[in-house]
Amino acid sequence: MTGPSADQLQARRDAVVRRLRDRGLAGLLVTTLVNVRYLTGFTGSNGALVLPTEGTGVFLTDGRYQDQAADEVPGLELLITRDLVGEGGRRMTGSSDAWAVETHTLSVDDHSRLDEHEVASAERVVESVREVKDEYEVEALREACAISVQALGALLEGPLVGRSERDVARDLEWRMLSLGAEAIAFETILASGPHSAVPHHHPTDRVIESGDLLKIDFGARVAGYHADCTRTVVLGPPADWQREIHAAVREAQAAGVEALVEGAVPSDVDALVRGSLDAAGWLDWFTTGLGHGVGLQIHEDPFFGPSNAGRLAPRTTLTMEPGIYLPGRGGVRIEDTVLVTSQGQRPVVLTEFPTELLEIA
Amino acid sequence: MTGPSADQLQARRDAVVRRLRDRGLAGLLVTTLVNVRYLTGFTGSNGALVLPTEGTGVFLTDGRYQDQAADEVPGLELLITRDLVGEGGRRMTGSSDAWAVETHTLSVDDHSRLDEHEVASAERVVESVREVKDEYEVEALREACAISVQALGALLEGPLVGRSERDVARDLEWRMLSLGAEAIAFETILASGPHSAVPHHHPTDRVIESGDLLKIDFGARVAGYHADCTRTVVLGPPADWQREIHAAVREAQAAGVEALVEGAVPSDVDALVRGSLDAAGWLDWFTTGLGHGVGLQIHEDPFFGPSNAGRLAPRTTLTMEPGIYLPGRGGVRIEDTVLVTSQGQRPVVLTEFPTELLEIA
Repeated sequence: MTGPSADQLQARRDAVVRRLRDRGLAGLLVTTLVNVRYLTGFTGSNGALVLPTEGTGVFLTDGRYQDQAADEVPGLELLITRDLVGEGGRRMTGSSDAWAVETHTLSVDDHSRLDEHEVASAERVVESVREVKDEYEVEALREACAISVQALGALLEGPLVGRSERDVARDLEWRMLSLGAEAIAFETILASGPHSAVPHHHPTDRVIESGDLLKIDFGARVAGYHADCTRTVVLGPPADWQREIHAAVREAQAAGVEALVEGAVPSDVDALVRGSLDAAGWLDWFTTGLGHGVGLQIHEDPFFGPSNAGRLAPRTTLTMEPGIYLPGRGGVRIEDTVLVTSQGQRPVVLTEFPTELLEIA
Repeated sequence: MTGPSADQLQARRDAVVRRLRDRGLAGLLVTTLVNVRYLTGFTGSNGALVLPTEGTGVFLTDGRYQDQAADEVPGLELLITRDLVGEGGRRMTGSSDAWAVETHTLSVDDHSRLDEHEVASAERVVESVREVKDEYEVEALREACAISVQALGALLEGPLVGRSERDVARDLEWRMLSLGAEAIAFETILASGPHSAVPHHHPTDRVIESGDLLKIDFGARVAGYHADCTRTVVLGPPADWQREIHAAVREAQAAGVEALVEGAVPSDVDALVRGSLDAAGWLDWFTTGLGHGVGLQIHEDPFFGPSNAGRLAPRTTLTMEPGIYLPGRGGVRIEDTVLVTSQGQRPVVLTEFPTELLEIA
């Protein structure tokens, strides 16, 4: 995919500017790289944005990226410098109002170089705007998710028994890259047998055996956007306990996915899914978070949890990933990347792939 | 590789503690994840270390990593919390002296939660200690570099003409992973024809043609340690200008590598290599930095440049990567990861691979 259009980038900046104006701020110095990318289109490793509420913004990067910035960044003044924060600070002008800075990521040392200015906290304003995806972002996420599940489908044609976790993980990653992923979205979790009970297991040389549960948490990246998907399969006919915990997770996960509608409150969804696992008698073995926003970052706002009382807006993308982890025995997680749609419509599962307990040779 | 030993980790912490004592500090709150890994062995994504100059340190992580921390982190008290900085701050006790915090990475928001304490800047003390690698680190770097050049050798058996940059980049990455890399060290730069003039090019669908220069900047990661290597080859017999710029880069790079000895001053080495390119008439086309330390980070201290007047110590690892970039035509870079050895001994090139201009089919 080529980058977002000039209009899309301008619309993103406009959305941030509206929130800054509501707070009476003169502008925002954006120094968090992923936020800079979101607002400018710049995909390099060093950049900043001075975004005033009046007038044209300034994009800052160093000399390595002069040509790339000219290609990727429309609608902004370009300033080449090695001193992004210092030069950025000097452009924070034009008003007696305070400017906001990204205090959640700006380092103490960089902040001290702005101290002649009165500055306020950005309060994660860009992260907040990023929760709702525009058309470009939804398309990139769709593509990343489509590649992911296509690769999984090919992998699960098997055989898998007799191969190491590491080998199978590499195989899956290779398939995603061959299908057009620009990179893998994160280090693949591929956990067999007792390892499947470890929520964030790193693939090892353990050889996959008949009777194992195999938990695969993986995803492709496209145009900077991350897919996030987990399926747990069984190698051969399942034991009763495997069937039981898989069914409990599947029921809870399906309920969670269906609850991701416009206006839903994340803490309510969290309670709903936990209630499902509790009713089945397995809540004590669900030891991770329920899910998270996903987009330019693999984990981003909004997050599930008992304290998130916001309301989901259309075109928010989140993961839904309950699990049951029985230490020393095995575990099951089922995870989808889900798109919240408009009032009255069902959520769209972007990682569309069967959730039944598949038996693989 | 398994992780560093308890003794190695203790020796790293002791080296930091000595420097803290020299400054009269009571201890250091380590919040930079890569520094936490270096000093504790912890490979997860969320951790901090309270390192007092007297007594036992405290390792902090969240509940997801309880088992992993018990496995990976020897010799420290373990504290499970979601509030690493807050709890870390409460453990900064035991003395009326100031504690240091990592102000170059600690966010303004996190810092504000420590403001009841008198704190000093760590002044990159852990990064400074990390410049000199211990035996474990050298072994990991050796292995990462060996895998990298072995993969390159297999790739260059060809054929490459007629394949896309993206396809060839994926092929190289796959080979590194198959040879035992835990991941690629960074996104591969594979730049053909005119693209080779772009220092940090992303692989595209451009098909590699006869007569192209092909610049390949790549590396494997092993146990967290990064290899960094570049070779530029030509597809078929080279044109005179290709031969000329390659020879100039090769001569400058070889001189630079030989200069990486104990006691050398990075700014002097920088001047030496630039002098070589200048004498050949190409200095204006060398538009990037000369190199950087490499280890747990792909770019780390020390950096080359006109202002770095430190002296290289034995067991420092650096890249040496001059280049000539002719916009619209093509470019050449040759880069090695190099180990500085003891006084009087020549540096060791860890990415051992021919630097001649190879003609590939």
